[in-house]
Amino acid sequence: MSTITGTRDVPALRARLGRAAEAAGKAGADALVISPGSDLRYLLGVGGGSHERLSCLVLPTGGTPVLLLPALEAPGYAHLPLADLGVELRTWVDGEDPFRMVADHVRGAEVFAVSDMMPALHALQLRDALGPARQDLAGPIVRELRMRKDAAEIEALAEAGAAIDRVHARMGEWLRAGRTEAEVRAEIAEAIVAEGHTSAEFVIVGSGPNGASPHHEVSERVIEPGDVVVIDIGGPMPSGYNSDCTRVYSIGEPGQSDVADTYEVLRQAQAAAVRAVRPGATAESVDAAARSVIAAAGFGEYFVHRTGHGIGLDVHEEPYVVAGNEIPLEPGMAFSVEPGIYLPGRWGARIEDIVVVTEDGALSLNNQPRELVVL
Amino acid sequence: MSTITGTRDVPALRARLGRAAEAAGKAGADALVISPGSDLRYLLGVGGGSHERLSCLVLPTGGTPVLLLPALEAPGYAHLPLADLGVELRTWVDGEDPFRMVADHVRGAEVFAVSDMMPALHALQLRDALGPARQDLAGPIVRELRMRKDAAEIEALAEAGAAIDRVHARMGEWLRAGRTEAEVRAEIAEAIVAEGHTSAEFVIVGSGPNGASPHHEVSERVIEPGDVVVIDIGGPMPSGYNSDCTRVYSIGEPGQSDVADTYEVLRQAQAAAVRAVRPGATAESVDAAARSVIAAAGFGEYFVHRTGHGIGLDVHEEPYVVAGNEIPLEPGMAFSVEPGIYLPGRWGARIEDIVVVTEDGALSLNNQPRELVVL
Repeated sequence: MSTITGTRDVPALRARLGRAAEAAGKAGADALVISPGSDLRYLLGVGGGSHERLSCLVLPTGGTPVLLLPALEAPGYAHLPLADLGVELRTWVDGEDPFRMVADHVRGAEVFAVSDMMPALHALQLRDALGPARQDLAGPIVRELRMRKDAAEIEALAEAGAAIDRVHARMGEWLRAGRTEAEVRAEIAEAIVAEGHTSAEFVIVGSGPNGASPHHEVSERVIEPGDVVVIDIGGPMPSGYNSDCTRVYSIGEPGQSDVADTYEVLRQAQAAAVRAVRPGATAESVDAAARSVIAAAGFGEYFVHRTGHGIGLDVHEEPYVVAGNEIPLEPGMAFSVEPGIYLPGRWGARIEDIVVVTEDGALSLNNQPRELVVL
Repeated sequence: MSTITGTRDVPALRARLGRAAEAAGKAGADALVISPGSDLRYLLGVGGGSHERLSCLVLPTGGTPVLLLPALEAPGYAHLPLADLGVELRTWVDGEDPFRMVADHVRGAEVFAVSDMMPALHALQLRDALGPARQDLAGPIVRELRMRKDAAEIEALAEAGAAIDRVHARMGEWLRAGRTEAEVRAEIAEAIVAEGHTSAEFVIVGSGPNGASPHHEVSERVIEPGDVVVIDIGGPMPSGYNSDCTRVYSIGEPGQSDVADTYEVLRQAQAAAVRAVRPGATAESVDAAARSVIAAAGFGEYFVHRTGHGIGLDVHEEPYVVAGNEIPLEPGMAFSVEPGIYLPGRWGARIEDIVVVTEDGALSLNNQPRELVVL
């Protein structure tokens, strides 16, 4: 049930393992314990899946990294260049206590950090096996690495962006009056995969009043002439890196007279936020740039969410573009810029691009027209 | 990104909530805290997805159950008959501390139990918010309920069994010499969905020597005449309940002379295990029934896994059919019976049915022929 693929760039992975151990040490942890998921994929080039049996990477700040696997799962990891990575493989069989094996490898640890997505099933058994050691979260440690993308990661995000752009470019094939949101969604999902994604992880089709609910996904509502439709789509590529892009369509000319002017406010807000992206600017300043345009036009109360989220091996990761996040932007950070205006019971709109911070400002990885597209 | 569906049987859900609180009390816990996932789906009829923001059901052993949601997620739960279920809805917005809200609702709790699949991200923040209270796992508590299926659950499992049987019945359409395992897998996956599943969660195509690796999934190996091929497939239905069924196919007559006799040993072992299922028999006795037949024929060392696993809202759940599990079987328990024989580097076979314990013994929910199917 697991999907085990990933980069084979041994020097890059070795460097990541070294930086993670170093960051753990600086954070006061004696070891990281990383479950299958995006953190493991970042560090070892394999994602794996969740199982009831413990699989984990044990990364002491001083000492040999160990990949601990149920013996039955080991063949799925056989392609990994573990020796070249300096990682030792250990396996366990039913009847052995893998939590004890972790404890033995990090004997004397006073603080150990587990990956944010480790299930409590494993985290609590590790807590018990590691006795008095304090259990912390590895997320804040690993995210410091993961939120600064290297060239290969940006290339992977750019490929994802181009793939989802190709889906938006074809929207007229599927989105028209008389069809339900669910029907349109099914065809979009097929195209997301056809254009290179491994799965259509999310497909939001919010037509008419449904577009005014930012977390609406899809319904049996029949799309009508004059509807404004929010299409927010994306998913992972074979690289593991994700796409996420929102565009807004109108089914013929908009049926409501305030659409054109209000949409133009949103477009300017999104452009202002993208222009605010540069090294040294804070994440919250990007949020403020979008929000101030929308508020100045009188729609402040209708922009009910943060402006964006980091993206990479997870669809949502650091840095979050939200009031209170004072982190200064650095080249290599990648995140969405996606303000919205939601008029309850009537219609809504959101424009979303993934951008990467460069020395010269934002590089947008999504490039389909940002105007309201009349189909 | 979440899928929120489930049963609307209010009296059944009310009863489950009551039994869960009661079981928690008996286990010494003052409250359960249940994350989105199969435990939540069992208790509330909704599955939901995993998000970085805390969503959970707080179920005190004495007091009102509370469903705590980020305000943005609340519309997705609006269809729930919470008032009828006696569950109070509380929402939180960015800037509020949802972990503190949980702590306030279970003030004074000395022991609280979190669902096994709660991410450490939430479990550790709850630990900190609940101060000196001891954090345990809810899995052992909830599984006592979940492993005894009611009539509606067995009906849902029977529907899943019939759906995956229809896929096996069509195997000749896809499985033939000259095609890769991956090609065959893609068409099987499509059929799994076409026959009523919401997704093809796992599709194992183990041809020739790959069939000798029980956790092999799929490869680019080209299937050859004379290959024995293990097909282990299943996934969730719209009800949330899962299918899981393995059959073995031969591409023309088997190319190796020991296949017929060895396969017959496996068939008898699987049948013996199914016959051993009855109320009061232990789970391990079912494992022993299969294992003794295989061992007596001299293949004991080639049966390298447990005989089965419970199934329901999760593909793998209690009760596990494995040596050491002395739990007595009861009517309503459902699990796989799937012994295998794996001859390394040569070929392998596994026969798997989902069975339900009835007063009269095992009722098999999979009913395609168990003989080696020559295509």
